[in-house]
Amino acid sequence: MYHFRSVHDVPDLPALLARARAFKADPRQCIELGRGKTLGLVFLNPSTRTRISTQIAARNLGLEVVVFNAGTEGWALEFADGAVMDGASVEHIREAVPVLGQYFDMLGVRTFPALQNRTADYSETVLGKFTDLSGRPVLSLESATLHPLQSLADLLTIQELWPHKRRPRVVLTWAPHIKPLPHCVANSFAQWVTAWGEADLVITHPEGYALDAQYTAGAATTTNQSEALDGADFVYIKNWSATEPYGQITCTDRSWMLSPEKLAQTNQARVMHCLPVRRDLELGAAVLDGPHSAVVQQAGNRGWAAQAVLEGMIMGY
Amino acid sequence: MYHFRSVHDVPDLPALLARARAFKADPRQCIELGRGKTLGLVFLNPSTRTRISTQIAARNLGLEVVVFNAGTEGWALEFADGAVMDGASVEHIREAVPVLGQYFDMLGVRTFPALQNRTADYSETVLGKFTDLSGRPVLSLESATLHPLQSLADLLTIQELWPHKRRPRVVLTWAPHIKPLPHCVANSFAQWVTAWGEADLVITHPEGYALDAQYTAGAATTTNQSEALDGADFVYIKNWSATEPYGQITCTDRSWMLSPEKLAQTNQARVMHCLPVRRDLELGAAVLDGPHSAVVQQAGNRGWAAQAVLEGMIMGY
Amino acid sequence: MYHFRSVHDVPDLPALLARARAFKADPRQCIELGRGKTLGLVFLNPSTRTRISTQIAARNLGLEVVVFNAGTEGWALEFADGAVMDGASVEHIREAVPVLGQYFDMLGVRTFPALQNRTADYSETVLGKFTDLSGRPVLSLESATLHPLQSLADLLTIQELWPHKRRPRVVLTWAPHIKPLPHCVANSFAQWVTAWGEADLVITHPEGYALDAQYTAGAATTTNQSEALDGADFVYIKNWSATEPYGQITCTDRSWMLSPEKLAQTNQARVMHCLPVRRDLELGAAVLDGPHSAVVQQAGNRGWAAQAVLEGMIMGY
Repeated sequence: MYHFRSVHDVPDLPALLARARAFKADPRQCIELGRGKTLGLVFLNPSTRTRISTQIAARNLGLEVVVFNAGTEGWALEFADGAVMDGASVEHIREAVPVLGQYFDMLGVRTFPALQNRTADYSETVLGKFTDLSGRPVLSLESATLHPLQSLADLLTIQELWPHKRRPRVVLTWAPHIKPLPHCVANSFAQWVTAWGEADLVITHPEGYALDAQYTAGAATTTNQSEALDGADFVYIKNWSATEPYGQITCTDRSWMLSPEKLAQTNQARVMHCLPVRRDLELGAAVLDGPHSAVVQQAGNRGWAAQAVLEGMIMGY
Repeated sequence: MYHFRSVHDVPDLPALLARARAFKADPRQCIELGRGKTLGLVFLNPSTRTRISTQIAARNLGLEVVVFNAGTEGWALEFADGAVMDGASVEHIREAVPVLGQYFDMLGVRTFPALQNRTADYSETVLGKFTDLSGRPVLSLESATLHPLQSLADLLTIQELWPHKRRPRVVLTWAPHIKPLPHCVANSFAQWVTAWGEADLVITHPEGYALDAQYTAGAATTTNQSEALDGADFVYIKNWSATEPYGQITCTDRSWMLSPEKLAQTNQARVMHCLPVRRDLELGAAVLDGPHSAVVQQAGNRGWAAQAVLEGMIMGY
Repeated sequence: MYHFRSVHDVPDLPALLARARAFKADPRQCIELGRGKTLGLVFLNPSTRTRISTQIAARNLGLEVVVFNAGTEGWALEFADGAVMDGASVEHIREAVPVLGQYFDMLGVRTFPALQNRTADYSETVLGKFTDLSGRPVLSLESATLHPLQSLADLLTIQELWPHKRRPRVVLTWAPHIKPLPHCVANSFAQWVTAWGEADLVITHPEGYALDAQYTAGAATTTNQSEALDGADFVYIKNWSATEPYGQITCTDRSWMLSPEKLAQTNQARVMHCLPVRRDLELGAAVLDGPHSAVVQQAGNRGWAAQAVLEGMIMGY
């Protein structure tokens, strides 16, 4: 594995999951693997879980890590090709990225979508600049449209919680929010679950929130949440902004929140969320604090997912 | 020692002081002790001395350290139980803390009081959430009402500067300030000096600034600063906001500042302050720059105090 | 070498350049040299290249590194001697620096000029406080008037790109900008190239932008850019604010920008810039993206320059 930007970069998904489980059992088994190599983690946006778990994962592999908060520690970046830079931005991404490639053996980058223009976001220009111009393997710490480290941890969590032979019914349900959020986690979860092929995925959302078909092929979709939840073994809660019109909030119906009553409809489903979660807006506090919630275990798995990916990247270049 | 939140968590204070002195003499004597363990330092508020000295102390013990500036690097936190999160805060402390507990073996946290409501601050809810929900040993990097790492360094400094058999007269004096400050350093100093039992503690402050009796039992208190300073061997300067009415500034009398004239009243006292100090407001520049000031040595001792505490915590769980 | 503040601190410049080249060939050859020593990097201003390259250089020497962003992580600093601190600033540099000296074996500091008063900036008071009050070797990460780590990387780059016997013609040319910038990079480049003595330096700038004579002795200067560029082997592009009147922008003539047409006048010159660079304001995008640009290689050399300097400082105290 060279870059890690989506499930398509993964040569063997079951093997990657197996490595994540192995690191969870014995975190420092490859403590010499990354010795002498340096990983730069570049944050263009806030991050808690990804920031911390990736640092620890890297150290468990012996990598040196340098965190760079581009917005607060460095210079305001310009992303537009052809810009005459006589305004507020100080450094162009076309210089910044090759320079970062001079300092690091591997680069991680986190970049959010602007949610103004679908074509712009879905062309993943910032992530693309990192892969095209850095000369280094690039690890997505969440990009404009996908969040693959999250999805790998999600699959790991489902594996851990599902010892049964039967394929689990996994429901990804839209939830209300007051801010327009990226599509990344939902896109990526759909992409990974369908690529994995070990679960039946149902996606439910209001009209105007259909995810891109490139990620949902193989999943059932419905705007009837109740129908979707019926008999669910896992319920993944997530808000995303509308896809039509792009990046807007067109549904404010709070009845989409997963309440204890709705949970009762499921097959004792385990409840997942990538966090941060808005209590009693996206997800009822009673559910979050109850025995069905898997969100803390899921967040904990972020570290093992990152470690398996970094191992693969170190060995793959 | 499991948590470190106040002197009550310390099983043997003289032994802890001895370990701090030992680390000062030979900082890397236990460089393998923390190998393979990770300490997360979570800052909800600014920090200079605590931030730097704790990082270095941890590295001297072989610990991995990750610093997390929650406010600028992560998501805006919600602390109120029962909040419907449809406002500005993005992540609830009830998720954030258990998740941090997934990533780290030990957690440090710095949290300031709001100074709006005495009961709220003195219930130490944020620190309590860390100890209750993280599943990990928790190190206070200063909490709403106490600052134990500072106090341990304070005792270490007094020990170093007092070779005499006679018990020193230690005076904690209030000083003027333009902002309402927490009570932590003063509370904690009183708590530790009285628990230590090797000094005579006198506390002096204006009317309305009496510290909580739970910390001052065993100390003399007076609103007559001149009387307190008379014959002092150590003078600890510190502002704190009023205790009645809580968190207000009711005294603006700048004559409480320790001037060279007041210092002359003492027994050639060494002058202490936890820093940062407001020159010529809390403490006269001539005193700070003079031979009686012990503030730099005191700040330097923060590192050895932190190292002794971390050693105790690594061995205690 | 004890401090590193300018070329005057360097006992043997050719030897220092040779060490930088050696580290570029074998980065971890002295991985044990700094073991057990701690370097504090204090940023009073933004930094990308210096921040990252110095961290990696230090780790390649086995040093522990702690980064401290004074403005966002710590307390607002007061720099004025004699200030009564009853305003916004919380901690005086006279306490902050000695305290930092307690925690670190070596200290790096980055501080920008205010560009309000020439005498104040050129007296380098902040850097001077670090050298005078810390008790530690001090590494300039860019100061009010000089940027020696940049200049060492600049010489290294010229060396690499000039295999010929003939002395290269090196032209430092002023470029337009919309903000008043420090003189540091230009001052420092002139100081180092003339001290090195292996190139013919020509400096060109508009009227009112003459650099201080202490740095330019030995260089030719002209306000005729075209004359300067004629036959240049290297062109170093850099804006700086006017020197008379100090710190102002008195020239807004965008024809000073290095365009492809101007580059054609040179002897196939390699184009240098310290970065960040404003595209199509300071330097034409076509030049930056073309084969003559050396800016990425130059930025990459920052790491090797820093490593050679840190090695010298570790061995020199």
